Amino acid sequence: MSDLPKRVRILEEGPREGMQIEKGPIPTQRKIDLIDSLSETGLEQIQVTSFVSPQAVPQMADAPEIVAGFKRKPGVRYTGLWLNDKGLERAIATQKLDIRGSLSLTASEKFLLRNQKRTLAQNIEAVHSMIGMFKHYNVEVNRASIMAAFGCNFEGDISTERVLELIKTFHDIGEQHGIKIETLSLADTMAWATPGSIRRVVGAVRNKYPDLNLSLHLHDTRGMGIANAYAGMQMGVQIFDAAVAGLGGCPFASHSGASGNVCTEDLVFMCHEMGIETGIDLEKLIESALLAEQVVGHPLPGSIKMGGSLNKLRQKVKESMQAKA
Amino acid sequence: MSDLPKRVRILEEGPREGMQIEKGPIPTQRKIDLIDSLSETGLEQIQVTSFVSPQAVPQMADAPEIVAGFKRKPGVRYTGLWLNDKGLERAIATQKLDIRGSLSLTASEKFLLRNQKRTLAQNIEAVHSMIGMFKHYNVEVNRASIMAAFGCNFEGDISTERVLELIKTFHDIGEQHGIKIETLSLADTMAWATPGSIRRVVGAVRNKYPDLNLSLHLHDTRGMGIANAYAGMQMGVQIFDAAVAGLGGCPFASHSGASGNVCTEDLVFMCHEMGIETGIDLEKLIESALLAEQVVGHPLPGSIKMGGSLNKLRQKVKESMQAKA
Repeated sequence: MSDLPKRVRILEEGPREGMQIEKGPIPTQRKIDLIDSLSETGLEQIQVTSFVSPQAVPQMADAPEIVAGFKRKPGVRYTGLWLNDKGLERAIATQKLDIRGSLSLTASEKFLLRNQKRTLAQNIEAVHSMIGMFKHYNVEVNRASIMAAFGCNFEGDISTERVLELIKTFHDIGEQHGIKIETLSLADTMAWATPGSIRRVVGAVRNKYPDLNLSLHLHDTRGMGIANAYAGMQMGVQIFDAAVAGLGGCPFASHSGASGNVCTEDLVFMCHEMGIETGIDLEKLIESALLAEQVVGHPLPGSIKMGGSLNKLRQKVKESMQAKA
Repeated sequence: MSDLPKRVRILEEGPREGMQIEKGPIPTQRKIDLIDSLSETGLEQIQVTSFVSPQAVPQMADAPEIVAGFKRKPGVRYTGLWLNDKGLERAIATQKLDIRGSLSLTASEKFLLRNQKRTLAQNIEAVHSMIGMFKHYNVEVNRASIMAAFGCNFEGDISTERVLELIKTFHDIGEQHGIKIETLSLADTMAWATPGSIRRVVGAVRNKYPDLNLSLHLHDTRGMGIANAYAGMQMGVQIFDAAVAGLGGCPFASHSGASGNVCTEDLVFMCHEMGIETGIDLEKLIESALLAEQVVGHPLPGSIKMGGSLNKLRQKVKESMQAKA
């Protein structure tokens, strides 16, 4: 398996991705409990909440209280999400988060028009003003992401050329502002990717931009999440977003209840079983996943928390052999 | 993607795998409805039921009625499962099934002892008597399967060497009886496989037995089913067992409710999106998957029936563009 990376970085987004889609009110303390539990697993980064308009996303109205309440574990990066300067200001005001700038373009103009009422040209303008905002607040920016990079429910398939054009756009904008994009995230926002398109797009990007660190943000709405992550690893991708227990969901799926982000513990399981390090304690992560189900109050899609890890079984086998010897 | 096969054969096992694990009584007619629905999807083979002891598996007591009731569609093979000559006799007596012989060895002696109260030596003896039985009933035998080929909850990891030894055993036994094993199924009975072990084991088997048709029977208990199938295809495997909607389950999982077989429509979706033919109509198969959920009366794990296919979305996008033109 020499084509696979020796180590991958898995960035946890469950507390943010997961809570924003839940219908029922979840006590702030329970959200904090989940973050504190995740802090003990060895995860290097946890996205704890989202500073979006409380009117638009009532589940996120308690973002400041969440941040005030969780316990910072040394060595863990705690991040937040924001979509405008108001959100960034609220995130900075907590004085407790690791504020990192990131730029975003969307590969599908139809999706942009629908979701943000913006054209692609306006999306590019917004990137310029985002950079201004980050500079104003003295926030470093060296990462960017492309949403809907593999396909869009409203525009259909996205060509590899489109993705390459957007990366060039990022580089051109960066040059104008004296910024270097070092890490690029390709987001499969509406779960159009399969291992074939992951290989095609990642391969083309790596060919043209070999120095760029690539990251994948995969949704599991069509059950391809783990296979897509594997295909990404085969192409050398070493950074993945994921959500504990498969928290989240997809507002664009045909049926509500479809899976959200690729599940953190399933991804960690696959890595460890293939000899790829993550720095994460799988057994502790399974405990967090079971807690996540309690917090949201309904079953979540992750498999390992149901199927169980193999190391526990290996341990049992070993013990039963020692007992016989 | 030149390393992937142009076409794969997906063999449906849902009506058998699925029903044997369901607790509630399911009316025979509903089981028949599901088979008849699957017959319309383009599947080449459907395993309709299991001729096991009605005392041991009460859900399968109506096997003869199921077989009597479903409508044979020309071009589809309808198979059954049996574990001894009594079961085979019952299957033959229906005069409606495609009776094909298959031999089975288990890679884990601990699992054998636990599940069939047999040693590996007794397992081998049983293969000899199975061949005698097939010859007696004039049933052709050219396929064999290895259970627990990737690991066992009671024995731990299974070495590649063990799998290769068992294939040699099959060949030796076959020679003694003038039988040629043409197709070999590797079964991940307790869901220990990951893409890494799939590549390792399949690679070793293909190296040593390049003329053998390989088939994979994958369980999705730990969420690796689709990724494992993809890894298998990359290694040239062209035959897969699967269960519509992910029907089934795993009696060996840590928690009841864990997923069973890899889901047929998710596998078909991945194949078609990567340009691999299956001969199956995905939209019709999704209808069968939704019917399967109604039949068992609870949600089933398959993703595409929730997330929706992409061709429907592509069609919508096309229509909306034509409407504007």
